[in-house]
Formats: sequence, structure tokens, C-alpha cells
Amino acid sequence: MAKAPPRAELRDRMIKAAEAILAEQGLQALQARAVAASVGCAVGSIYNVFGDIDDLILHANARTLALLGEALEAAGGAGGPQERLLALAFAYLDFAVSHRRRWKAVFEHVMAENKPVPAWYREGQTPLLGRIAAVLPGSMGPDSRALMAQTLFSAAHGIVSLALDRKLADQFDRLRTERQLRLLVEGAVRSLSAGRAPPPANP
Amino acid sequence: MAKAPPRAELRDRMIKAAEAILAEQGLQALQARAVAASVGCAVGSIYNVFGDIDDLILHANARTLALLGEALEAAGGAGGPQERLLALAFAYLDFAVSHRRRWKAVFEHVMAENKPVPAWYREGQTPLLGRIAAVLPGSMGPDSRALMAQTLFSAAHGIVSLALDRKLADQFDRLRTERQLRLLVEGAVRSLSAGRAPPPANP
Repeated sequence: MAKAPPRAELRDRMIKAAEAILAEQGLQALQARAVAASVGCAVGSIYNVFGDIDDLILHANARTLALLGEALEAAGGAGGPQERLLALAFAYLDFAVSHRRRWKAVFEHVMAENKPVPAWYREGQTPLLGRIAAVLPGSMGPDSRALMAQTLFSAAHGIVSLALDRKLADQFDRLRTERQLRLLVEGAVRSLSAGRAPPPANP
Repeated sequence: MAKAPPRAELRDRMIKAAEAILAEQGLQALQARAVAASVGCAVGSIYNVFGDIDDLILHANARTLALLGEALEAAGGAGGPQERLLALAFAYLDFAVSHRRRWKAVFEHVMAENKPVPAWYREGQTPLLGRIAAVLPGSMGPDSRALMAQTLFSAAHGIVSLALDRKLADQFDRLRTERQLRLLVEGAVRSLSAGRAPPPANP
């Protein structure tokens, strides 16, 4: 009989198995039994390593967020805020298309009993919003930049997810989705360039 | 033994039962067995009236869209595009907060085997986007208005759904969500008032 792997190695194999299940079958298939079968361990071993299945899901979703961070970093983009925000938005669309199921799992997952997600998971989200905020003018101040970054992320997410879920049309239309992201970014950039002046009341 | 109700009445009772299950327990609880138990009929009767469970879910979700349409109509709003778009966005937020589970079911539902949703259901969505498009200047042309309406709906949906699902924060912060919707609408209105001129390249 093979020697039992050390706990850290077992933990890593469980997370990798969970990631593979998310990527191939989606969140509803991510159950302790399936992970145990993939790793070749007892179901109880999952709960010895992770407090509950939510804990394991969060670890797999955190890897998805890390992958997304790498994709956004690679998009980088040169130029002014408009070019750079658009590069980020298009990279987000690319990522969602390429990693459809695991990307969706990040947003589908709801903690049992409405428990809050742990701080370490939130910390994994911070660089993603920070990457958007970094493109915004420093003159805005940190709170305004954080609010705008959250707004742009959430809005782009809405555009991408309704398009991919075909909620408003029978087919996913990539070009139309890109045009929507462009409209969103252009509006935001106009607001930025207009500074803090109120927009026209009745254009 | 009571006389069996006519088919139209039975159908209506099934849809009402499905609506109640969505409102109280959410989409995952909406199964033929639960509807049959609530109506007091055999499970087979559900499939005699509806082709499959997706068909019944779509009918219940269509009622949610109709309710949403009424809420947006009541918000109406006077003033220029900015005031009217903001009134619609805030009404959307109110609706999502007040009808949390059935609102979420509209977006969670995925057709079996990726079948397209039927045309009658799409027709129920059209007035919602039309209500946004109607606030936009007629000078934009129908295609641009439709694209902008879809963009604003999707973006506002992203803001509201990530906030309510507490995806970026531990608590739902209504005031912050309203500020995000305001940023979105202000950006769009600036784009409208700037007409078709390209935004500044590097503000």
C-alpha cells in the first residue's frame, strides 16, 4: 500500500480536483463525493482538510480569480484611460468565454446559511478591482476611484453574463457585446474627463 | 368528489403555485412534484398542461417580468433622460430587493439541453427594454437606442445583482448601490449629450 501523501499535498490535489470539476461540469457537480473519487481518498478526508464544502469551493474559486488576475495583467494596455479600460473589459469578456463554467461558478456560489465569505477570499478580489482603479486618474481620490472601479466591474460583468447566458437574445453575439462594453467605457471616460461637474440636466 | 376544474383554470392554478414556490423558496425548489402537491393534482397533470418543467418555469418567470414592467411603469419619472433613467434604475433596484427570489429565478433559469427560449417569452422582455429606449433621444436612431437600452439594462443588472449577492462586500449597501447606478446613468447621459463625437482620447 502506498504511503499516504502529506497533508499539504493532499490539500493541493483536492483543490486541483475541484478546479477540474468546476471547469468540466460546473458548480452543481462539485460535491465532496466527486472530489474524493477524483483524488482517490475517503469522503471524510475532504472534511478533515477543509471545514466544509464551501471552504473547498472558495479555494477553487480563488484560483479562478487568480487566473483572471493574470489575464487582466496580460491585457495591460497602453494609452489613456479609455484604451486601458477597454483592454481590461475585453480581457474580462475573453476570460469569461474561455473559462465559462469556472467563471460562472465564482458568481453562482452562495455560502451556506448566508455566512460571510472569509477575509482571505476577499483579499483575493482586491487586486482585481485595484487593477481597474489604477487606470483611473489619481485626482479622483481613493474613495471615488474605488467606487468607479466597482461600478465598472459590476456593469461589465452584467453585460458579459447576460450576453453569455443569452438572456436577451437567442445567440451570444460577441461583436454586439464588445459594442456594449465600449459604450460603458466611453460613458465612464466622459464622466472622468468632465471631472466633478454635474452632467447636463436635460441634454 | 369535486368536478375536475377546466384546463384553463388548472393551468392558471399551476402557474400561480409555481410563482409562489419561486417567491418563497427559489428556482431550485420549483419541481413538478412540489407544484402538484400545492395544486392537489397528479404530477402527470403538470406534463399534460405544460410540455416540460422549463415551460412552466418560463410562464412563472414571464409573470415576474410583467410585474417588473408594472414597477418600471409606475416609476415613470418626469424630467430629462438623466432623471428618467435614474428613476428606472432605482425602480429596478427596488424590485430586485422586494422580489429577491423570483427576480433571481429569471436569471438563474437555463433551458434544458440549451434549447432556445420560445418567442412568446422573448416578446415579454421587449417592453422592458423598450421602456428604457423610450427615454433616449429619438435622434439616436432605433438601432443605437436599442443597443444603449440593452447596455444600460445589463450594466444596471450587474450592479444590482453583485450588490445583492454580496459578491464584492460582506453586506448589501443600498446607498452605495444607488451611487453606482447614478455613476452609470451619468456616464450614459454624458455620452448622449456629446452626440456621436468620439470621446476624448486621453483626458
